[in-house]
Amino acid sequence: MQSYPSKLLEQAVNELAKLPGIGRKTALRMALHLLKCPPAEVEAMGHSLIKLRNEINYCRECRNISDQELCGICANPKRDHGIICIVEDIRDVMAVENTGQYTGVYHVLGGIISPIEGIGPRDLHIDSLLTRVENGKVHEVILALPTTIEGDTTNFFLYRKLADLNITLTTIARGISIGDELEHTDEVTLGRSILNRMPYESVITRK
Amino acid sequence: MQSYPSKLLEQAVNELAKLPGIGRKTALRMALHLLKCPPAEVEAMGHSLIKLRNEINYCRECRNISDQELCGICANPKRDHGIICIVEDIRDVMAVENTGQYTGVYHVLGGIISPIEGIGPRDLHIDSLLTRVENGKVHEVILALPTTIEGDTTNFFLYRKLADLNITLTTIARGISIGDELEHTDEVTLGRSILNRMPYESVITRK
Repeated sequence: MQSYPSKLLEQAVNELAKLPGIGRKTALRMALHLLKCPPAEVEAMGHSLIKLRNEINYCRECRNISDQELCGICANPKRDHGIICIVEDIRDVMAVENTGQYTGVYHVLGGIISPIEGIGPRDLHIDSLLTRVENGKVHEVILALPTTIEGDTTNFFLYRKLADLNITLTTIARGISIGDELEHTDEVTLGRSILNRMPYESVITRK
Repeated sequence: MQSYPSKLLEQAVNELAKLPGIGRKTALRMALHLLKCPPAEVEAMGHSLIKLRNEINYCRECRNISDQELCGICANPKRDHGIICIVEDIRDVMAVENTGQYTGVYHVLGGIISPIEGIGPRDLHIDSLLTRVENGKVHEVILALPTTIEGDTTNFFLYRKLADLNITLTTIARGISIGDELEHTDEVTLGRSILNRMPYESVITRK
């Protein structure tokens, strides 16, 4: 344990080191950087973090982060409200939106089932998803969770909840990334991409 | 430019991305992490950063960060106040202190001369260093700045300021790190370590 010449500095380092991926060395570098910034800038940073935590809202439909009661996507009448894409968190919403390929709406789970991290189905926004789907009008649910064991577990859990409802349940396509070379692709992905081969016409007609 | 679903989130990401080494993706990850923390924890973090910036003190002697007017090292009568070790910032003080090999005092420059970053001698605590040395009692000054062009420039600047004063001017030893293999050492370090070879006895007697 390093000894710091100042309690103030030590506290700031301890706080910064709680951020994900930040060790004590990086935290110290950050704290020393803040000491060289104008006080007004540091106050703006501190207050924006506190404000973020205290004033953040979540869309009452899809649980995405939003400043309004309904997020911009759920409030948009041009989006297809009959298709719901299930994602882990807001970063995935941003990633799918960036593709410009999706016109449906989302449902943000707020995590995935992970016994190691103590996250169970009750910690996720699954009940509100079921309510949305049961209220009718939804005809397709797309599972777009990570391709990890936790993602697969969550997919299966949702599958069991949704299978009896009269909807189409799909998952985003897995396969070789565009631009990837076959020899550098891992065996599982390559193997599955052969098993799940698709009509060549479906590729060329989409271009 | 990513579009965020919330102004609050965007502001927090912008602020976090000002930290050194933090890009917008990492900043977003941090912001989402904060949203999962209890509000009290986020408030503690925000306020500790603001408090750090507003209430920090610097030792009036060595310019090290300190909660008192004099830092623990300068206030310690057991330290040798006749030797001053010049370092770039507080991290170097902590690094040298960790070795347990140094009993003198320090002088923290607060940076090194770097024309590219617009840091000149006037931005550093050089005047207070000269005052300390001129006030007598100091018989040795150790240059312990980084072995970079900026460090060498600063060393030379200090050498010209200090050469006429009646003190011994030394620099920390450069050479092969303990545990390093010769074949993996860069040529400049290896070359200099041969030119600056030292009596074998000085190594064995120090062990």
